[in-house]
This record gives sequence, structure tokens and C-alpha cells, in this order.
Amino acid sequence: MSANGSFVRAADVAWDITGDGVRRQVLGHGTELMIVRVEFVAGAVGALHHHPHRQATYVADGRFDVTVGDETSVLVAGDCFYASADEVHGVKALEDGALIDVFTPVRKDFLMPGLW
Amino acid sequence: MSANGSFVRAADVAWDITGDGVRRQVLGHGTELMIVRVEFVAGAVGALHHHPHRQATYVADGRFDVTVGDETSVLVAGDCFYASADEVHGVKALEDGALIDVFTPVRKDFLMPGLW
Repeated sequence: MSANGSFVRAADVAWDITGDGVRRQVLGHGTELMIVRVEFVAGAVGALHHHPHRQATYVADGRFDVTVGDETSVLVAGDCFYASADEVHGVKALEDGALIDVFTPVRKDFLMPGLW
Repeated sequence: MSANGSFVRAADVAWDITGDGVRRQVLGHGTELMIVRVEFVAGAVGALHHHPHRQATYVADGRFDVTVGDETSVLVAGDCFYASADEVHGVKALEDGALIDVFTPVRKDFLMPGLW
């Protein structure tokens, strides 16, 4: 169950500004899964980073240069990428777009914004 | 890593017809996460079912009547729902639409279509 029960309405969820041209909406979580929508304006960057959480990402809109480990590829709406525990990954938006990031376990750091 | 490496291109992935007006595209998987796009025509149903895998679903397009456990709610594009292990869930498409289903652990039954 998420903090809000089984259902999460995007209209009820605030956005966090996380960078220049980047904002995210934490769309709740279950016991082991969390969904986050991240929107980018053209040219915005999600810098290379890593974390112990496993990540799967669905490209909802737009076109992104995506780096995972030592590979970089262009992904478009409908495509996905996967990052293992502590695998370095990052994106650059080639046009306005949105990613659906999914994590296991839940990213508790996203639930306690004062701590990151 | 997915079966295809870190990157999965939707254009390379076949669709499985899974019901009347329902088709799905298994968009790869990591070690613990799998993403599946499921498209519905208006009126199509994902019957109530359950499985031990935890599921999180993002509504990519359309409007759905969603049941999780004993609750039913209408979700629209951008909304999410969560189903715990073995929690009964199902959907009815109120218009043409698409869901992004995410599972942990990976649904191996979706990788071996002969077995389901």
C-alpha cells in the first residue's frame, strides 16, 4: 500500500524542483516499489549518479540521451532502461520530455526531502 | 541488466495478445524489476487476479476503473496504483488506454509464454 492507500492521483501530488529544468512527482509507493514521474525541459540534465536501489525507467514522452554504466544510447517514448544496484546512470533531455522512474526498494530519501 | 542489455527499444519488442482488446509488450527487465506496457481498447477488461509479485502501475493513457482489494476507483493518465503480494486487482478500460505495469520480482511467467 502507498502512503495514500492503493490509489495515487497525480492531481493530488506536489512537484519537487530537483534541478535546472527538472521537476519530479513522487507517485506513491507500495511495500517494495516506488513510481516517480520526472519532467525535463529540452537540454536539462539528470547528472550521472548511482544508488543501491535497482531502477527501471520508462520513457513517457520525448527523447533522451541515456547513459548506464559505460554505454550511452538515445531512447524515445515507449523505450526503457535498467540500472542495477550502484550502477552509474544519467540522462540528458534532447527535447521536452518525461521519464517514469521505478525503484526497488523504495527510495526513502525521496520521502524525506530535508535529508537529501 | 535486461535480456537485451541496459536499454530496451519498444520498436524491437513484439506484442502478446492477452485478451479481447488487450495486448502487452514486455519491455525487458533488470535483476529485480520488469516493465510491461499493456494496451486496452475501450471496454476491455483485465480480469481480477492475483500473484505473489508486488505490482505498481502507472496510467500512461486513458481512463480506467481500477479495483485493488475491496476498493474500486477511476484513475486517469498520470495516476498510479499499487498491489501487494497476492492482493486481488483488475481493471476495465473506460476508453482506449495504456498501463505501465511494473513488477518485483520479475514475472518469469511473462518470459515463458508457453507456460501460462
